[in-house]
Amino acid sequence: MPRIVRVADVAWEGTVSRGAGVVSATSSGAFELPVTLASRVAEPEGKTSPEELLAAAHASCFVTSLGSELHRAGAPAERVDVTCTITMDEVEGKGHQIVQSELSARVVAPGADDAILADASKAADDGCPFSALIKASATVTYDATLEGES
Amino acid sequence: MPRIVRVADVAWEGTVSRGAGVVSATSSGAFELPVTLASRVAEPEGKTSPEELLAAAHASCFVTSLGSELHRAGAPAERVDVTCTITMDEVEGKGHQIVQSELSARVVAPGADDAILADASKAADDGCPFSALIKASATVTYDATLEGES
Repeated sequence: MPRIVRVADVAWEGTVSRGAGVVSATSSGAFELPVTLASRVAEPEGKTSPEELLAAAHASCFVTSLGSELHRAGAPAERVDVTCTITMDEVEGKGHQIVQSELSARVVAPGADDAILADASKAADDGCPFSALIKASATVTYDATLEGES
Repeated sequence: MPRIVRVADVAWEGTVSRGAGVVSATSSGAFELPVTLASRVAEPEGKTSPEELLAAAHASCFVTSLGSELHRAGAPAERVDVTCTITMDEVEGKGHQIVQSELSARVVAPGADDAILADASKAADDGCPFSALIKASATVTYDATLEGES
C-alpha cells in the first residue's frame, strides 16, 4: 500500500453551543454534513459527530483487513459486515477521551470454520492501522461470527 | 460532556481488491457512502476512505475545542474553518500506520490577537480528545491564523 494523504474541512459559524458546522470530505467530495455540539453530546437527530466518523473509519479499515486475512487463509469471504461502536468518556485527570472501540463482524465465507475465522480476526486486528491507532491509548475489542451464505 | 456512544456499520461484498463496501452512520443516519480499496490507495474518485473519515473527525472535534477556548479567553469567534490532513504511511516493523494529523485553522474573532489565538490553539490541541487519540502513536501539528470579519 502506498502513502495515503486525505483531507477534510469543517466550517463553523457562531458559538460552539448554539452555532453549527459543516464538515466536508475535501479529498473525495463524498460528503458534506452538518455537525453541532448538541447532536454530539445528546441525541444525534440526523447529524454525525467525530465519534461516529471514527466508528465509520475503524469499521471500514477492519473490514478490508479481515477480508484480506480470510483470503490469505484460503477461505475468501463473499460478504463481511462490521459494526463498530466508539465510546468517549471522562477519564480521571485527562478529561474526555476515546476509551473504547468495539468491532463485531458477521462473515459469509463458505470455506471458513470457527478456527479459521478466529485466527483471521486476530490477524486483522493486529494488522489494521485503525486498531493500532486506537489501541495506543484505548481498548479495542472484536468478535466475529460465521453466517450462512447470502 | 456526558459519555458518548456512536455506532457505524460497513457491509462489504466480494473480494477486498475488486469488491466494494458501503459504510453507514448507524447512530445518526447522516450518511451511507461507498468505499473501495482502489479509492483508498489510489485516487478517491468520489469515494471516502478511513483516512478521510478520520480527518473529518479530527477537524470536527478541534473546531469546537478552539471555539470553546476562544470563548473562554473573552474573544469569541464568529467563524472558524479547520482543515485536517491525515497521512498514513509505512512504518518500519509496524506496517502501515497513521503517522500524522495536520490541523490548520482560520479564525474570525474580532476580540482576538495573535497571542490570544496562539494560547487558545495550544489549549484546544491539549484538550481535544482526537488530538490525544492521535498523539498516542503519531504526530499532531496545528497552526491558526486570524482573518478579517466575514
